Amino acid sequence: MNENMPERPIDALDRAKGKKVLVKLKNGEEITGTLVALDLHLNLWLEDVDIQGENKRKFNIILIRGDTILYASPV
Amino acid sequence: MNENMPERPIDALDRAKGKKVLVKLKNGEEITGTLVALDLHLNLWLEDVDIQGENKRKFNIILIRGDTILYASPV
Amino acid sequence: MNENMPERPIDALDRAKGKKVLVKLKNGEEITGTLVALDLHLNLWLEDVDIQGENKRKFNIILIRGDTILYASPV
Amino acid sequence: MNENMPERPIDALDRAKGKKVLVKLKNGEEITGTLVALDLHLNLWLEDVDIQGENKRKFNIILIRGDTILYASPV
Amino acid sequence: MNENMPERPIDALDRAKGKKVLVKLKNGEEITGTLVALDLHLNLWLEDVDIQGENKRKFNIILIRGDTILYASPV
Amino acid sequence: MNENMPERPIDALDRAKGKKVLVKLKNGEEITGTLVALDLHLNLWLEDVDIQGENKRKFNIILIRGDTILYASPV
Amino acid sequence: MNENMPERPIDALDRAKGKKVLVKLKNGEEITGTLVALDLHLNLWLEDVDIQGENKRKFNIILIRGDTILYASPV
Repeated sequence: MNENMPERPIDALDRAKGKKVLVKLKNGEEITGTLVALDLHLNLWLEDVDIQGENKRKFNIILIRGDTILYASPV
Repeated sequence: MNENMPERPIDALDRAKGKKVLVKLKNGEEITGTLVALDLHLNLWLEDVDIQGENKRKFNIILIRGDTILYASPV
Repeated sequence: MNENMPERPIDALDRAKGKKVLVKLKNGEEITGTLVALDLHLNLWLEDVDIQGENKRKFNIILIRGDTILYASPV
Repeated sequence: MNENMPERPIDALDRAKGKKVLVKLKNGEEITGTLVALDLHLNLWLEDVDIQGENKRKFNIILIRGDTILYASPV
Repeated sequence: MNENMPERPIDALDRAKGKKVLVKLKNGEEITGTLVALDLHLNLWLEDVDIQGENKRKFNIILIRGDTILYASPV
Repeated sequence: MNENMPERPIDALDRAKGKKVLVKLKNGEEITGTLVALDLHLNLWLEDVDIQGENKRKFNIILIRGDTILYASPV
Repeated sequence: MNENMPERPIDALDRAKGKKVLVKLKNGEEITGTLVALDLHLNLWLEDVDIQGENKRKFNIILIRGDTILYASPV
């Protein structure tokens, strides 16, 4: 935990731009990919994407709607 | 991943206008089609549309309500 | 796909005023009818309406609440 | 379909004030009654009300919350 | 139905202040009580309250969150 | 029922600050505790908390998100 | 319960910054971790995170979307 840490929860993810993140959706699917961009609604632009769950698959680019997200974690 | 990439997640999809995209809905249906227009709510106008899922079918034109979308991907 | 196409997704449906549209609801019901009016919430006024699904029926006039819609298509 | 029709979807229902309407709720219940008042959220004030569904019953007056409505139809 | 009736649906309930009302919730529970106060979100303050459903019980005072309500009726 | 009672439904709960309240959540859990603070979203700060339901447990302090609440009652 | 206590429910959690909190999600998962930051939507930034439920796991850093939270408690 950093001494002079930023105040906004979104910064936990913003610091992970360009790095791998794991995103858990409300429907149970889990998505990992490299975080390219995010906004305050938690809409996420990922690249080099793997989707786990009932339909495993890969995407080059994905836009995840923020309101479908349970939580996200830099991994 | 582009060097001077745009900042907004929506741009991940905006760059795909005129190209094929895959859209996964919250009810499990998957829709592919050519992206004609989108807005900040993620409402999407697609053409030459195929719907997978329990009711496979084709449409010339479709308007998808943004709040039903889990994620979308240029394919 | 038109060369100088309009920009808003809602226009995909707006162009279909006076024509037949198919509307798929979040509860699985499908409604077809002639589109009379629509707004930015995707509230729809249809006439000469057929409802498919568990309760098939006909209506002269119907108002569909926009937030119950998955997608709509001119047919 | 009227030649110089109003533009807003809500007007499909507004024209039915003082007349019988059928309202289908998201939980599957169907309500019929005389429409007294409505607002832009689709909140409805009905009188002489019959509720179909798992609990059939009658009410003199009812206020239906707009966000529970799938669609409504003058009958 | 009154000749010079008020225009807002909420007034159907507002007229019932100090009287008994029945409230049907989205989870199927039914609550009856004396209406003390309401607001535009349909938040309700009831007194002398009976709750029907899977857990029958009585309360002196209850605050019901408006967004959990299907419909309400003066009884 | 008080003669010159306040008008807002939230006041039904506001009067119970420092006293025991019962809170019923949309997922069926019931929580009792001493009400310390509340806001217009019905977010609640309780202390000396007992949670009934599938996972009985005790907390010293809890913050309940308002949009998960069905109803609340001073007990 | 403090004599001159703060008024906002969010303060119940804000006082726990730097300490361990338990977060119960609407999907039943429980998450414990050290609270780093929070906002008025109840978005939470936790560190040293344990997730209980169907998929037990550990994360260094997590961002939880506020609208998925039932309640949170300093532990």
